[in-house]
This record gives sequence, structure tokens and C-alpha cells, in this order.
Amino acid sequence: MILPLFFIFCLFSSSHAAVQDFCVGDLAAPQGPAGYSCKDPSKVTVNDFVFSGLGIPGNTSNLIKAAVTPAFAAQFPGVNGLGISFARLDLAPGGVVPFHTHPGGSEILIVVQGTICAGFVSSANTVYLKSLKKGDIMVFPQGLLHFQINAGGSVAIAFVSFSSPTPGLQILDYALFGNNLPTELVAATTFLDTAQIKKLKGVLGGTG
Amino acid sequence: MILPLFFIFCLFSSSHAAVQDFCVGDLAAPQGPAGYSCKDPSKVTVNDFVFSGLGIPGNTSNLIKAAVTPAFAAQFPGVNGLGISFARLDLAPGGVVPFHTHPGGSEILIVVQGTICAGFVSSANTVYLKSLKKGDIMVFPQGLLHFQINAGGSVAIAFVSFSSPTPGLQILDYALFGNNLPTELVAATTFLDTAQIKKLKGVLGGTG
Amino acid sequence: MILPLFFIFCLFSSSHAAVQDFCVGDLAAPQGPAGYSCKDPSKVTVNDFVFSGLGIPGNTSNLIKAAVTPAFAAQFPGVNGLGISFARLDLAPGGVVPFHTHPGGSEILIVVQGTICAGFVSSANTVYLKSLKKGDIMVFPQGLLHFQINAGGSVAIAFVSFSSPTPGLQILDYALFGNNLPTELVAATTFLDTAQIKKLKGVLGGTG
Amino acid sequence: MILPLFFIFCLFSSSHAAVQDFCVGDLAAPQGPAGYSCKDPSKVTVNDFVFSGLGIPGNTSNLIKAAVTPAFAAQFPGVNGLGISFARLDLAPGGVVPFHTHPGGSEILIVVQGTICAGFVSSANTVYLKSLKKGDIMVFPQGLLHFQINAGGSVAIAFVSFSSPTPGLQILDYALFGNNLPTELVAATTFLDTAQIKKLKGVLGGTG
Amino acid sequence: MILPLFFIFCLFSSSHAAVQDFCVGDLAAPQGPAGYSCKDPSKVTVNDFVFSGLGIPGNTSNLIKAAVTPAFAAQFPGVNGLGISFARLDLAPGGVVPFHTHPGGSEILIVVQGTICAGFVSSANTVYLKSLKKGDIMVFPQGLLHFQINAGGSVAIAFVSFSSPTPGLQILDYALFGNNLPTELVAATTFLDTAQIKKLKGVLGGTG
Amino acid sequence: MILPLFFIFCLFSSSHAAVQDFCVGDLAAPQGPAGYSCKDPSKVTVNDFVFSGLGIPGNTSNLIKAAVTPAFAAQFPGVNGLGISFARLDLAPGGVVPFHTHPGGSEILIVVQGTICAGFVSSANTVYLKSLKKGDIMVFPQGLLHFQINAGGSVAIAFVSFSSPTPGLQILDYALFGNNLPTELVAATTFLDTAQIKKLKGVLGGTG
Repeated sequence: MILPLFFIFCLFSSSHAAVQDFCVGDLAAPQGPAGYSCKDPSKVTVNDFVFSGLGIPGNTSNLIKAAVTPAFAAQFPGVNGLGISFARLDLAPGGVVPFHTHPGGSEILIVVQGTICAGFVSSANTVYLKSLKKGDIMVFPQGLLHFQINAGGSVAIAFVSFSSPTPGLQILDYALFGNNLPTELVAATTFLDTAQIKKLKGVLGGTG
Repeated sequence: MILPLFFIFCLFSSSHAAVQDFCVGDLAAPQGPAGYSCKDPSKVTVNDFVFSGLGIPGNTSNLIKAAVTPAFAAQFPGVNGLGISFARLDLAPGGVVPFHTHPGGSEILIVVQGTICAGFVSSANTVYLKSLKKGDIMVFPQGLLHFQINAGGSVAIAFVSFSSPTPGLQILDYALFGNNLPTELVAATTFLDTAQIKKLKGVLGGTG
Repeated sequence: MILPLFFIFCLFSSSHAAVQDFCVGDLAAPQGPAGYSCKDPSKVTVNDFVFSGLGIPGNTSNLIKAAVTPAFAAQFPGVNGLGISFARLDLAPGGVVPFHTHPGGSEILIVVQGTICAGFVSSANTVYLKSLKKGDIMVFPQGLLHFQINAGGSVAIAFVSFSSPTPGLQILDYALFGNNLPTELVAATTFLDTAQIKKLKGVLGGTG
Repeated sequence: MILPLFFIFCLFSSSHAAVQDFCVGDLAAPQGPAGYSCKDPSKVTVNDFVFSGLGIPGNTSNLIKAAVTPAFAAQFPGVNGLGISFARLDLAPGGVVPFHTHPGGSEILIVVQGTICAGFVSSANTVYLKSLKKGDIMVFPQGLLHFQINAGGSVAIAFVSFSSPTPGLQILDYALFGNNLPTELVAATTFLDTAQIKKLKGVLGGTG
Repeated sequence: MILPLFFIFCLFSSSHAAVQDFCVGDLAAPQGPAGYSCKDPSKVTVNDFVFSGLGIPGNTSNLIKAAVTPAFAAQFPGVNGLGISFARLDLAPGGVVPFHTHPGGSEILIVVQGTICAGFVSSANTVYLKSLKKGDIMVFPQGLLHFQINAGGSVAIAFVSFSSPTPGLQILDYALFGNNLPTELVAATTFLDTAQIKKLKGVLGGTG
Repeated sequence: MILPLFFIFCLFSSSHAAVQDFCVGDLAAPQGPAGYSCKDPSKVTVNDFVFSGLGIPGNTSNLIKAAVTPAFAAQFPGVNGLGISFARLDLAPGGVVPFHTHPGGSEILIVVQGTICAGFVSSANTVYLKSLKKGDIMVFPQGLLHFQINAGGSVAIAFVSFSSPTPGLQILDYALFGNNLPTELVAATTFLDTAQIKKLKGVLGGTG
């Protein structure tokens, strides 16, 4: 007589608590340095691993004629703890994603429509600049200042992936001009002229 | 009189040896557990950070009617050490990427054309299965068996990103039937019938 | 007069909250990507660091004539956060641990009784196969398909250690045939014959 | 007409839950292997990132004529998850920080007053010994036994930094003589004479 | 007769090749993603672990009236692989370390003389600003824009430590104005006026 | 006509340079912080993953009546980069592995013969002490002082595994008494009596 095979495996399959294949983020539970707490595995479904927001163009009717739609852990809890996340980038003609950094991760961008001029600057202040066509990918090392700009006459679309579920996004203009950092402190720490700072604070809603 | 600002910074900018912003892989130099040795930073150009191979459809004139074009560290040394890599997936009608794992990283897939049925199986043997439309993304946790299959009547294209520059790719059929692992060992360790094993060894070029 | 030495050290010894030497898992508290929450250090005893289940042979009266007894974080919370775990492997004559992977860790196996034929397959589809005698150890790199099979006429026993408290265990046959993954999907993604799939689904309790 | 720039960025700035720039420790919430749970980001202020306890000399009126004032995660929750912490070291004339280890991190020490003789011993039992003057820094690799001793006639002060928010501190004398480890066990595992052990247990409050 | 104890330990102590307690950087050998190759342990002396450059004030006779003296892995190879590094900061009256980031590590600063106003900006654009007195420490999370400015009438001195042997240093003004990034690209990606950009390019030696 | 399947996979299987499944250590090539350089994958055989030294009892004819036989990366290069290693422990009656630490990893011990009394001390100076029988396992958190002692009248044997290929081993007695650390420095930093130190220096070959 042959006994069923699963006798020996039941230790593993009987308890969801032991599964650490994934840790879908429970946004309502405590968060730690490694990410969100895990959703109860017995309540996880395939929809936790799928995100459908990136099929829709972002709204580029704004000053920079650009939109970034993130699928980071906060929007897409399925990536929590998995070392990866994603986003969509729309650039209308003339559109630009201004200088920014991702403090928590490196980025790969792929152009899927149009032409994008992308660049980053290293710690040694060297500029790495390239015009990217459809199908080209470019990698931006973690934490370095970089930008993307529509280099063609039509809409450009790109997808970007990050080496962290929470790469962060620090946009230079917002960090400098979009908060209450006093104008004189911005001037002292950037050497920009006061008039220039006040002008951009006006545009970006900064005070001080 | 005002002295030039760069007096204080020259310590940083004068020596490329100090730059650890990135480590473009030197495929000819020794490799270690963390990746390839770094190319001399003074010889790095923007082209080291750009890969153009993903704009071209892979050749799907094969049994599985599918093609995977990788941009891992071996093909795209710019990602070395940066915790991320990329690939393109082409699926002709009826095409399939058979069950496989990436031992070294998690994966996010985005459908950019067509419809793809994708699935993975957890350690608890639960199946997570979804039909993905254009713009949908799905995450596959590190090391788990998963597959992608064209679920529509036309060509499907996807881009995939990994949480490692060297995620690896172990295709189940090749691991079992595409090498010299003796048939009786495959049978003993998979419970497949000998005839089935020999049939697939024939297709995949396996011996033993 | 000499003051007691502990005056200067009381900052360290007075509060258990500051101790991060270990993090015994509290299986009832929230779990995160790095593991279980820590049990209150003041309630931790030496028994949290000791596990006695591995002195007893596993029950090998089953189809595969084998048993795996894990001491992962779910069974042995003392290893939580410590990057290591353990298990016992019993193989009756003719016993086999079928092809499987540990998505989350590398493994070292030591034979303590009998002879075991063990093997793994790399991403390059190369087979690494060895007959192991008592006292031999073999390492299986993270995430790669591997198996163990009793290569002698008597009971074989091994201990295995993992580079993670939660290495996971994905058994190929169970992933393919032990759940509700539809037969036609298994066929399409493995190239196995339908009859073969249905036969094994029957043995392993799979549906669809 | 110009639309406000923040249209595209509101996804990022509207929800504090998405911020993973930092994870100020909430000492009252569950703790995991990666550190404390994060304080609600909306309640974080600059004071969470500032610690003022290191401007005050520690009390060196004790046997070792030394004091260590830590700013680890338990005292300075702002460093939780950030891979770094700090401490102050005061050494009166004749003062010594006896042999100890930090199981969880490497250390850099800078002398800001006086002269300090510091040393560590490697796994190969090699001694690395140096007399450090004001402005000198020395690095002590993770987990190795090391000490600091006032090498001058006046007060010496140093600051130390660690590569972990919770480096731990295991002081040899306390581990051996400051608890209930039986004298005979200490003797058997250190080869020290029983009289020596009892003498130091007496000084350090040990029993057994 | 008693045999010498070291019989059992000779396996460990006889070969320096086995020692991984530290990995003093060999700046002339290949570098990888994890850092410099290790200097032959048999040639390592205590001086590899000591750096004496931080006792000397940096030269603040420059535009920003400030100086940063680093002891990163490139200057202090003893920290290679140890997850930590150090630097000295001198601020003459009116001195400022302008906005910058460390892409590779978090920072703790301690004021040892004078008063320093320090601040950083989070991804959510919140400003964390504090006036630091002697003995105060402040932590700056990895990758975020931050600055330090002399807030008193006399010289201020600080020591800073990083959670990486190669934290990197990207100074905003140099990244934007100190290289050959074309003025129109700077304008498009920062919204700064062309005149402002040209003015600062003039000061900082930028072209284009 | 059906084309062979391997057309699409040849990118992966054709070049061994791309394989990062493992990194068998090349002990003659440069070493970095993450471990040894990788042996050319085309020259790797199964014997690189197998170590046979642990079937043989260590020589316990010494003062401590104990022997440790390591299979760390230096002895067993197959574990390089895989986060795990192994060792064998022999304890003759009365045998002891004196107080020691592994600076680089946590340890799990399994008793396979006899009875062993094992213990470790936490940073809070708490003692965790247990008598272990055959089949019991105990975990020792990274970097903490611990010991093992034969608690029975016959030979005891254990296997130990570590969470690092290079855990290191710092034996307290050797660090204190087995080198040229001056007696007065040992006295000052341990509070041991000079006579005690000189006695043990005599036994262990120390000078100074």
C-alpha cells in the first residue's frame, strides 16, 4: 500500500505563517526600516501582485508638461520587501522631468514612444547625457541627480523600474523652492540670487 | 578678492579612484560575489549606461514562439553593482515562456502590447494567475516558479525588470531535459514516466 | 574609595529594549520583510535558542520514503533575524527528496548516516552530481533546482543548514501537480503530455 | 495660462505613508530584525534627528575612570534604520574602556582631547596597537575585541561612530564576571584560576 | 604530559588568507561593487587602521569659507568593506557647505566648536532645520539634500561620520554649474533663468 | 517544421561569464570585501561544491581535549559568496571549546553524539546556558561570546553551521594571552592579576 506523498510535506503547506516568499504590504499596520508589515498570507490574492494603473496616460496638462505615475510600495503593496518597483512617465511635447534624485534606489528607464534626452551627473560632476530612442534603456545609479526631457515633437512615454520598493523621489525645485525654507538660507546654500529664488518660490508655492 | 570655489572640493573631484557612484562591469577582469570588477571610471562614457538591444523584436520562429532578450550585467555592464537589470519578452501568437525561476532576483513585468497570461506558484503551492492587458504590471517574487503565455491572437510584447544585475534564469525543461542528467534520476526525482522524459530529452537535446 | 564599575555601564544593561543581539520571533505579532517581530527580550529564555525536534527520525512511511523536519523561523523562532536555519532529512531505502528549490537561501547538507546521491542544476543547465558518504558536505547555491536520493541499501540521514531563517521550500511536483493549476496550462508551460500531468495530479491531489 | 507644477507631484507629497527616507524609531511599537517600527512621519520633527546628550562629560568617578555615553537607536531613535550611530567617550587620567566588542557594527574613534592608546586583536590573534593624538581616527572592525586607555596625564575625550544603529556592546569583564555564570564554568572555558574569577565576580557583582 | 593548546587552532592562525575580519583597500588592485580589493593581510599594520589627517584645520580661504577633509576609503583604505567612514568640516565665520547629497550613505554630524545651522529636505519636501551647539549631533538620512552653515561669529568645526566607506558627495552647485552641461538644458531641467545659470557657471568654471 | 527550442535560450547558455548562480572562490586571485574572486565557471566541477574533511575526527590530544575542523571559504571555496559555511567539533571527555566569538556570523550547533553544555552571553550580560543532547540544536547570535563543553563521560561530536562563508573565530584566551600584547596592557584592560596573565601567556605562547 502506498501512502499519499503529502504526509511529509504537510509541515510546510499547512501554515501560511511560515511563508516568506513574499510580504504584501499591509499599509495600515506598523512599518519598519525594511518596509511595511506583511498582509496575512491567507488573504493575499493574485490581485495583490498586479497593478493596472500604468496603462493610462498621466495628465501632462501642467507647467512641465509631464507626469510620473508611480507603482511604489505605497501604491502597489505587492512589491513590499521584494527590492523592486515601477513607474510610468509621460512627456508631452516640450515636457520635462526636472532634476531629481531617488535616494533609495537605482533606476532603469525604457523609452516606449518618442525620443527622450536623459542625463545624470556623477559625484565627480561628470555629465552623462544621451538621446534615447524607442527601445533604448538607460540606467541611473542610486542617488545621483538626473533628468528626462522630451527630445522630439510628439508625446514620449517611458517606463521606469527601481531597485527598491521605496526608491523615494526628491525633486530639486521642490526641495529648494516648494517649502518654507527661508529665501536667505536657500541663497546662502545655493548661491542663487534672491530674486531668482523668490520667483521660483512664487511658482512652486514656497514661502519664507 | 574672491577665491574660486573649487579649492575646497578638489579632493573629491581630482581622483576618479574615489568614485563609487557606479561600477561599470569590466567583463575581462576578475569577478567576485558582488559582481564584476569595475571598469576604470576615467574610461566610462554615457554609452556604458545605455543599452539599445531592446528596440528590436526577438526571433520567435521557434518551438515556443517566444524570445527573451536580456540586458543583464553580462550584456549591459552598466548595471553591475546597481541592483537592477532588464529584458524584453516577445510572444508570437501561441507563444509561451515555459516555467522558470530567477534564483537571484524578483521580477516586474509590464505588458506593452497584446495580452499575457502570467502566473507563479508559492512555496505553499498556491497558484497566482492573471490575464494581463497592455499597461498592467505584475511582480514575481524571487526564486518562485512562474511562466508567461500569450493569451491573445496577436503578438504580445512585455518588458521585464529584475531586482539584481544578475538574476539568473533557470528554465525548468532545460534543467530537467536539456542536459546529461540520467533518465532514471530524472524519473526518480520528478515521478515523471521514463517515456515522457526520453521524449522531452529528444526535443531539448538532452542525453543520458 | 572605589566606586562600583557598573556605574558607567548601567546605561547599557538597564534596558532590554536596547538589546538587538537577537530578535526571537513573536509568531503572533506583525511580520515584516525582514522577519517576525521580536519577542520581548525580558521574556526570552535559553529555550528560545534551543530546538529539540531533530533528534527524532521523521516518518518515512510514504510514497517518497523520505521526511524533512524543518527548524526554520516558524518552528524555531530563535533563528529569526539571524540569517540561518536548520533541518533534518531522513531517507529510507529507496527514499528521495524530489527536485525542489529554496527561493530564499543556500543550503549545506552533511551526511551523518548512509549514502546520498545529491545533485543540482545551474542556470547554465549544467548538472553537478555527487555520491556523498558519511561526513561529506555539499553546498547547494540559492534558488537552484536540486534533489537528494538514498544511494545505499539502508537508511540515510542528513542534516541541512540554510543561509536564511526562512529559506522557503518549493517542491517541483507539488508546484506543478499539487494545486489547481489547469492541466492545459501545465502542459503549455512544461511541454509535458496531458496524460502525464493528469496522472501526477491524481497522485498529488491536484485539480484542474 | 500656466497650471501649477504640483499637479504632477501630488501623488508623492500628499501621503506621508509613502515616505521611506527615514524610519524614526517608535520605541513603544513592535521591533523587528531590521529595527524599531517607524514613528508616524507626520509626527516627526527635526528634534527626532538631533541628540544633545553628547556635549556633557560622562561621569568618570568610577573604578575604570571612564564613561561611555551612547546615542544608539534606543537613545536616539532618529538613527533607526539608517545604518549609523554615535557615542561619546570620557577617560579621566588613568581611565580605561576595558576589552569589549560590538557584535553588530564597526567603529571609528576620533580623539578630540588628550591621548588615547587603542588596540584591537584580529581573529588571527594579531594585535593592532596605536597611541592616538588629538585629531587621529582609528577604525575597529566589526566584532573584534578592542580597548581604549588614557595614555596621557589629563582627561581624554573621544567620539565614536558605528556602522549600525544598534551595534551592541559586550564588555568582556561583565560577560565573564558580572552575571550568574558558575565560577567553575568560567574556569573551564577561560583557563583562569578560580581565585581570580571569584575576585572579579566580587568586584563586578557576579554570583555563582 | 600536556600538549600545546594551539594544535587545534593552527588551522585558523596559520593562514592569513582566511582572515576576513577586515579588507584594507589595495587602491592599485581591481575594484568591485563592494569596494577595493584587499591588501595582503600579512602586510597590514596598525597604521592601515589609523588616519591622522583630521587634526589639521582645512583651508577655508575660499568663496564658501569652508573646507571638507574626507577620510573615505580612497583616503583611508582601512575602512574598505567596514560600512563606515569619516570626515572633518571647517567653517570660517560666514562659511557654508552648500546643498549636497551623499548618494551612498547616511551621515551623523557632531559639532565640536562653534554653532552650525544644519538642515535637510525630505522626499516629501519637508524641511528639517536646526541650530546645533557644541556637542549636538544630527543625522542626515541617505541621499537627501542637506547643508551646513556657520551660525556663529567664530570658526565652527564638526566631525561627520557616514554609514559607508564610499558615501560619495554630490554638491548641487557643481553638478549644475561646474561642468559642461549646456545652459539651456540646465534651464529646462531646473527652471532657473539663463542669466542666473551663466553667472554661476562663470563662478564655478562650467562651460556650455 | 519545428525549430529547436534552444534558439531563444542560447543567449543564456552560451556564455559561462553570465552565470552568477555561484562564485567558487579562487584563493589565488584578488579578494574583496564580499569574498574571494570567482573561479572560471567553465572549470568548476561538482567537487568544488563538496568537502570531505568532516568525516574524520579531529585530533583532541591537546590541552582542551577538543578540535574544531572548519569548512569555511578558505578550506571549502565552494561556499564563497553563498552566505553559509560549516565545521565539525570533537570533544573528548573533559573537552572544551573555550569562550570565543564569530565576528562575522551566527552559528547553529547540532549534537550528533554525546552531551554538550553550551552557553552564550548577551550584550545585557545575561547568560543563556543549556545541556544539549543528541539531536538538539542551539543557535548562537552573531558576535556574542559563547562556549561548548563536553557534559558527559564519553566523546561528544557536533556539527556547526554559520551564516557566513567567513564567520571568523576569535578565541578569547588566544586574543588575550597568545600574542605580544604587553602584560600590563592586558591587566589594565581586563582587571586580571599580572600573575594570572603571565601564567596563561606561558601556556599559550604569548610574549610581552
